[in-house]
Amino acid sequence: MTQVVRGWDGLSDRNPLIEFVDACLRGPAQVVFQNNPLSGLLILVAVAWGAFENGQPRVFGGAVLGLVVGTVTAIVLQVDRPSLRKGLFGFSPVLTGIAVPTFLDHRPLMWLYLVLGAAATTVITLALNAVFKTWGLTAFTFPFVLTTWVLLMGAYQFNRLTVLTGLKPRFPGEGALTGGRFNWDLIPILFRGVSQVYLINSWVSGLIILVALLINSRWSALFALVGSAGATLLALWFGVDGLSLDKGLYGFNAVLTAIAVGAVLHRPGVFVTIYTLFGIALTLFVHVALATVLTPLAIPVLTGPFNIATWLLLLPQRHFAPVPNHERVKETIVSTAKRTIQPLQKKR
Amino acid sequence: MTQVVRGWDGLSDRNPLIEFVDACLRGPAQVVFQNNPLSGLLILVAVAWGAFENGQPRVFGGAVLGLVVGTVTAIVLQVDRPSLRKGLFGFSPVLTGIAVPTFLDHRPLMWLYLVLGAAATTVITLALNAVFKTWGLTAFTFPFVLTTWVLLMGAYQFNRLTVLTGLKPRFPGEGALTGGRFNWDLIPILFRGVSQVYLINSWVSGLIILVALLINSRWSALFALVGSAGATLLALWFGVDGLSLDKGLYGFNAVLTAIAVGAVLHRPGVFVTIYTLFGIALTLFVHVALATVLTPLAIPVLTGPFNIATWLLLLPQRHFAPVPNHERVKETIVSTAKRTIQPLQKKR
Amino acid sequence: MTQVVRGWDGLSDRNPLIEFVDACLRGPAQVVFQNNPLSGLLILVAVAWGAFENGQPRVFGGAVLGLVVGTVTAIVLQVDRPSLRKGLFGFSPVLTGIAVPTFLDHRPLMWLYLVLGAAATTVITLALNAVFKTWGLTAFTFPFVLTTWVLLMGAYQFNRLTVLTGLKPRFPGEGALTGGRFNWDLIPILFRGVSQVYLINSWVSGLIILVALLINSRWSALFALVGSAGATLLALWFGVDGLSLDKGLYGFNAVLTAIAVGAVLHRPGVFVTIYTLFGIALTLFVHVALATVLTPLAIPVLTGPFNIATWLLLLPQRHFAPVPNHERVKETIVSTAKRTIQPLQKKR
Repeated sequence: MTQVVRGWDGLSDRNPLIEFVDACLRGPAQVVFQNNPLSGLLILVAVAWGAFENGQPRVFGGAVLGLVVGTVTAIVLQVDRPSLRKGLFGFSPVLTGIAVPTFLDHRPLMWLYLVLGAAATTVITLALNAVFKTWGLTAFTFPFVLTTWVLLMGAYQFNRLTVLTGLKPRFPGEGALTGGRFNWDLIPILFRGVSQVYLINSWVSGLIILVALLINSRWSALFALVGSAGATLLALWFGVDGLSLDKGLYGFNAVLTAIAVGAVLHRPGVFVTIYTLFGIALTLFVHVALATVLTPLAIPVLTGPFNIATWLLLLPQRHFAPVPNHERVKETIVSTAKRTIQPLQKKR
Repeated sequence: MTQVVRGWDGLSDRNPLIEFVDACLRGPAQVVFQNNPLSGLLILVAVAWGAFENGQPRVFGGAVLGLVVGTVTAIVLQVDRPSLRKGLFGFSPVLTGIAVPTFLDHRPLMWLYLVLGAAATTVITLALNAVFKTWGLTAFTFPFVLTTWVLLMGAYQFNRLTVLTGLKPRFPGEGALTGGRFNWDLIPILFRGVSQVYLINSWVSGLIILVALLINSRWSALFALVGSAGATLLALWFGVDGLSLDKGLYGFNAVLTAIAVGAVLHRPGVFVTIYTLFGIALTLFVHVALATVLTPLAIPVLTGPFNIATWLLLLPQRHFAPVPNHERVKETIVSTAKRTIQPLQKKR
Repeated sequence: MTQVVRGWDGLSDRNPLIEFVDACLRGPAQVVFQNNPLSGLLILVAVAWGAFENGQPRVFGGAVLGLVVGTVTAIVLQVDRPSLRKGLFGFSPVLTGIAVPTFLDHRPLMWLYLVLGAAATTVITLALNAVFKTWGLTAFTFPFVLTTWVLLMGAYQFNRLTVLTGLKPRFPGEGALTGGRFNWDLIPILFRGVSQVYLINSWVSGLIILVALLINSRWSALFALVGSAGATLLALWFGVDGLSLDKGLYGFNAVLTAIAVGAVLHRPGVFVTIYTLFGIALTLFVHVALATVLTPLAIPVLTGPFNIATWLLLLPQRHFAPVPNHERVKETIVSTAKRTIQPLQKKR
């Protein structure tokens, strides 16, 4: 296994085409903060599985197209090459590429919209990273969120595109909020919470994504499950729409927050775990609030709540530069831990 | 009196419990930019008076609980200790603690929501202060505003919480905007404008809060009244809903702007007073615009207009670091005044 | 001609009144990134023409009043004098001055609202420039956009002001989106796209504004037409409301983006032109998305889409400080071009 990885890394260093494929493969893995082409490949398989299972193969086509267009745009704009090679310019466009065929009806113009949207996602990634750098943060998946919101809200004004989000513009508090019945099959819900990170409603896909996490970082796989379970149970307690809960729609943002705050950007530990549990609650509250804000516009929250909650959770401790690269984070943690997290734990 | 103060300060330095109580007491006073535990105590009395007068004693309970949870969270997160001792981590949570039982119905889960909200207010205070520091500003009461907006908008999606803002989601311009009749008893309205800073509708509470200002800073008490009167009269002239005007709801944001811009963050003077009067108008306009934005969501503006208007008024003169501490500001002013405000006045 | 210009510049240096008139005249030209009093004068003529043609002479009065009040406010606040002389404090207030009488009904209180709004525009220009400076950007016309949004949304809550935007608050997707029939007279539409930068619906005004551009910068005039044509044709392809298209309402934001990105802030060239064409599409998409966001509030997008799109397009290449002064940009380009744009073009 390790030899295969080394062989691939060597090929990637010598062959520009392999280097490009490698950068593309790392994109889907970077959504969940993993820098590993094999994890990315498994996640693409999970997306393909979910797309075919739900009878929407074009969603997988959109994922691949978005990934390639976003990465090519980054090359054309001559971005920082190490970041490119880590897949940091692929993770938002791959999500845009999944979202557009998921939420817009199928017709040729949709594909042009997707291509322009994937290119815009890369430009917006560069733009927002420049802004967030001021506070030692990155834009996470917010470029995908912003671009997809723009594309969906824009589509309302275009006769030749139709929005199929399944939502209807209405006032918050109105309508059958509690209509859905909840199915108490909790285990598949936890897995669907993971698959919904990629807008896929399939527990099998969720399981594959967990394996993709596991082969790169056990802590990440563990915290993904903690995030999915924590947010789902809390949402159940406060009483939400059962149908959405069943689809894992209350879990996926917390999955990302839990991986980021609990496993990748801090060294896992007792205090960090407590902070992460608090962060899961914060993510859920931001999620439902954002859902209310977007109710009159009938637009899904996407991974907006994860981004907002995680920025708020990371800003107080700005020594932890959020580096979406597991390896580099480990190194950084060695030097910063003594100054920050460690004392926090010891003194208590 | 002075001896009592000194004795208290000495106790606070030696006894950690007294130190904690002292930090908590300064919280409510820091809402109106005063660093004085006695002012804070008086304001808590005013909140208690208003809560009991309006038959909602749980609002006072929420205030105390929010204050304690917010301050304890700050201690757990090991914030900067001098800021903690000045009450700078108590002033937003105390408001969150008042807002939650005011706008949500009474049931056990509401208290858990309040506790998580008060803790989140402290995290968001740290987060937003880190952001606003870039421009020499602080987040003022915006962490309270943001948290409370999130909690109220989130509650729409939770079956087990009910929003009782008295507002109904609707389109702006619709509905009985001008329904309320205006009572020309202006003096109680001015006092209610002050009490509404703490979401209390009671002229007696407003009077107590003015006394709390007076014992620490006469200029602050004066500008509080100028803000309340200015915004109320301007709103009356432009023609607003009489019922809301009567409750002091058009005054409280301008009270805060006037104290901040006119009395605390600048040295009071002719030019500063003119700028403050302009600021009161700006606060009113931002208030009504924000009310329109929030109409489809049926969420109150809270102190959002004060925060937005005051940031806009302070950003042009970035030499005036907004230090929400009367004493330190006085010192700073001695050194910066010659460079900034003074020349502004002389040359004109 | 050149001698007349030199004579005027000399007068302006010696006579404070001429200096003031000169600064005011440059304001309308700076909206389209030109630093030329004659261009500004021609643009005022274009605004006057459009105002009288549409039977709304008070719009021209508002333009002049806004320009003077905004510039005087800047002098009172002792802004940076070179910026003042370049008209950089006139270009947002002149637009606020046009927008208020365009969108509010005619009565004395409207003029007070306009004066306070124009003064606020200058304060907000200073405030937002202080924020955007962090990323090497300026606020462009966003102070006008923000102020006008506040004034219009505020007016909903004031009995003594009436909003006449012609829009009705509704949910996005509802209503006769496709009602308008499109008139295939493309040439007048392109010119109206230019005139709508100043909220004027008149192809003659658009032609005059193009002449105003031409006498200062041929590239700017060319890219103004490219922006108007590009956005109009793309909107036609995707299928928008024909009536709005006919009025040039889908062109004016792209006109500004194209001038900024294609002609003024970068050295015109092949790569920059491709980036500008992409930017025109991005501006259109942001435009329709923002229109959806504002649908429940019934507020026009104004030049918001240009501001947002252009910030996003400029942030990735932060070496290009956006200096809204054609002359200085030229100088800067000489030194920065070799490092940035030039290599971008050569390597490809």
